[in-house]
Amino acid sequence: MPLNFVIAPVASTLQTALQIKINQKTKPLGALGQLENLALQMGLCQNSLTPCLTKPSILIFAGDHGIVASGVSAYPQAVTAQMVVNFLAGGAAISVFAKQHGLNLLVVDAGVNADLPPHAQLVNAKIAKGTRNFLTEPAMSQAQCLQAIQAGADLVAEQFALGCNCIGFGEMGIGNTSSAALLMHTLTGLPLAQCVGRGTGLDDVQLAHKVTMLQQALEKNIEWADEGSPSFAIDGLRTSTHPINVLATFGGFEIAMIVGAYLKAAEYGMVIMVDGFIASSALLVASSLYPNVLDYCVFSHVSNEQGHQALLAHFNAQPLLNLDLRLGEGSGIALAYPLLQSAVLFLNEMASFAEAGVDSE
Amino acid sequence: MPLNFVIAPVASTLQTALQIKINQKTKPLGALGQLENLALQMGLCQNSLTPCLTKPSILIFAGDHGIVASGVSAYPQAVTAQMVVNFLAGGAAISVFAKQHGLNLLVVDAGVNADLPPHAQLVNAKIAKGTRNFLTEPAMSQAQCLQAIQAGADLVAEQFALGCNCIGFGEMGIGNTSSAALLMHTLTGLPLAQCVGRGTGLDDVQLAHKVTMLQQALEKNIEWADEGSPSFAIDGLRTSTHPINVLATFGGFEIAMIVGAYLKAAEYGMVIMVDGFIASSALLVASSLYPNVLDYCVFSHVSNEQGHQALLAHFNAQPLLNLDLRLGEGSGIALAYPLLQSAVLFLNEMASFAEAGVDSE
Repeated sequence: MPLNFVIAPVASTLQTALQIKINQKTKPLGALGQLENLALQMGLCQNSLTPCLTKPSILIFAGDHGIVASGVSAYPQAVTAQMVVNFLAGGAAISVFAKQHGLNLLVVDAGVNADLPPHAQLVNAKIAKGTRNFLTEPAMSQAQCLQAIQAGADLVAEQFALGCNCIGFGEMGIGNTSSAALLMHTLTGLPLAQCVGRGTGLDDVQLAHKVTMLQQALEKNIEWADEGSPSFAIDGLRTSTHPINVLATFGGFEIAMIVGAYLKAAEYGMVIMVDGFIASSALLVASSLYPNVLDYCVFSHVSNEQGHQALLAHFNAQPLLNLDLRLGEGSGIALAYPLLQSAVLFLNEMASFAEAGVDSE
Repeated sequence: MPLNFVIAPVASTLQTALQIKINQKTKPLGALGQLENLALQMGLCQNSLTPCLTKPSILIFAGDHGIVASGVSAYPQAVTAQMVVNFLAGGAAISVFAKQHGLNLLVVDAGVNADLPPHAQLVNAKIAKGTRNFLTEPAMSQAQCLQAIQAGADLVAEQFALGCNCIGFGEMGIGNTSSAALLMHTLTGLPLAQCVGRGTGLDDVQLAHKVTMLQQALEKNIEWADEGSPSFAIDGLRTSTHPINVLATFGGFEIAMIVGAYLKAAEYGMVIMVDGFIASSALLVASSLYPNVLDYCVFSHVSNEQGHQALLAHFNAQPLLNLDLRLGEGSGIALAYPLLQSAVLFLNEMASFAEAGVDSE
């Protein structure tokens, strides 16, 4: 068995006690809305009436995509590496927002098509210099896919060992909305057109071309599956819809690492912050393998990227923010993080009606 | 003329330069969504390419309401004073959230029906121990109304003199959703039923009673206007729909002070953070008098209280958060504040494509 995560559902032992604690705070019943759900969820994740957030961290996984050769992105592939350098120099949106909220930020080279200069915040976990073009062949081998999942899991284990109990995953990879769209289509069954969006800013003609390319990739994949390519056998399965097969066929290295990162974080009972469309597509793979991972997930925002709203609905998720963001990088996580803090703080620091001597109706 | 605020529209001189600066940041065009609008607005408010937020403050205005004698609230009137004590002791939601984000917090006794012990963070600006019951007579005299508006304006002037350029107003007052609903109905013309909500948590029967009481208050008010009560003459106007008349008839002292606070803050060109339903009803009065005040307003959230969504639509507002909050106190402001910070930070600290050496398509 290539994957052996052990992910328990959150314990519901404290559910009633947490709800009572929330209800006794000096506010009308339910008046903190979604923050109350969030406080409850974090209490359950940590199985504690006084949950806390320690060493909150964002890992940004970066990787390149063979499919960009087929003209699916508004930006050239070189931008992936350039943005990694920008993250590390502090000039990107996520650099600014992570600093604002004191979030630990690490950048992981999952498969950037460039040799990146070493940096204290950069982890070299490069699987290869970009995936292959899934229009002509699977994006990666099954071995590479499993290696990437393991690498993501190992990085989370390191953060956990350092005392981090709240973690989120961002991504950078020119072309990766194409991967995400195909993962979503294949694993949810929603129509391809509903899963494909403008990414970094395609116009109508470019978007139509992207849909055509992805449609062709799907048809090719059906052919591969028919051939029963041995590289896609896993545990004796030869179906093209096994999540690992889908991930290896259409995924990126950064997406595969995020899959492993989610699974390890859930295994540890960490609070997991989910970013936008691509991060959610990775969660789709992870939760197809281990549905309990969703218990630990807080959905930071609904992206402006076509498809994200439907994907969140698939998870039955209530995103915290709806600001028409479509940047990735973990930026939505960083912007939503203060709300997680607020949920923990009101639960731990607000007075109860009895403590404050306030009449409760 | 009893009101002599001078509120200019924001200067649009820097609009193009600000938009270019935003567009040159290392992100796809428009990818920071609503944060980009926010950065633009704050730049325009401050007429600066590098806006900043200094000494951000929340003033909570508290007052009691005669209408509670008619059974419109789920909580007894004593809770207003009890919650003021709770704000000051640090046990309320707003206490916790303001501390979380380093927001200066002041509580203003606008008209609480109790003698409150002195406290460093409490301003005594009491107009009277609660308003009268507007089911039987106007809530306040015109003189009290104008006095409250002036008091709110003076408090903002003090904060401005201390270096504050970003301010928001919260409220506490058992019964004040009734005032807000009548202000909304009278000044927007929307049906009363659409303006009345459950407040702190009325059930269906209690809500129906509240609507009946408010309908009666409206009918009474038409009678008063027919009598041409001299206390409602302003600048020779004797119409019941002049905003000052409406405010004096149905308002609370805390709402009237917030009206003055908005107007003074806009006069100074401060960034104004708007909280929930009651704070928005005060803005409705303020913007009915001086429409330019809206240029300076950032809408922190859409409340779960019935009517708020329609009221925001009336302002053509884009609220930052939608978390089903319905607490007041300025809590929505405090929770949204980090997003204002983020908008300013990305504008000032993110690298441009040229600075970072990133290809821009």
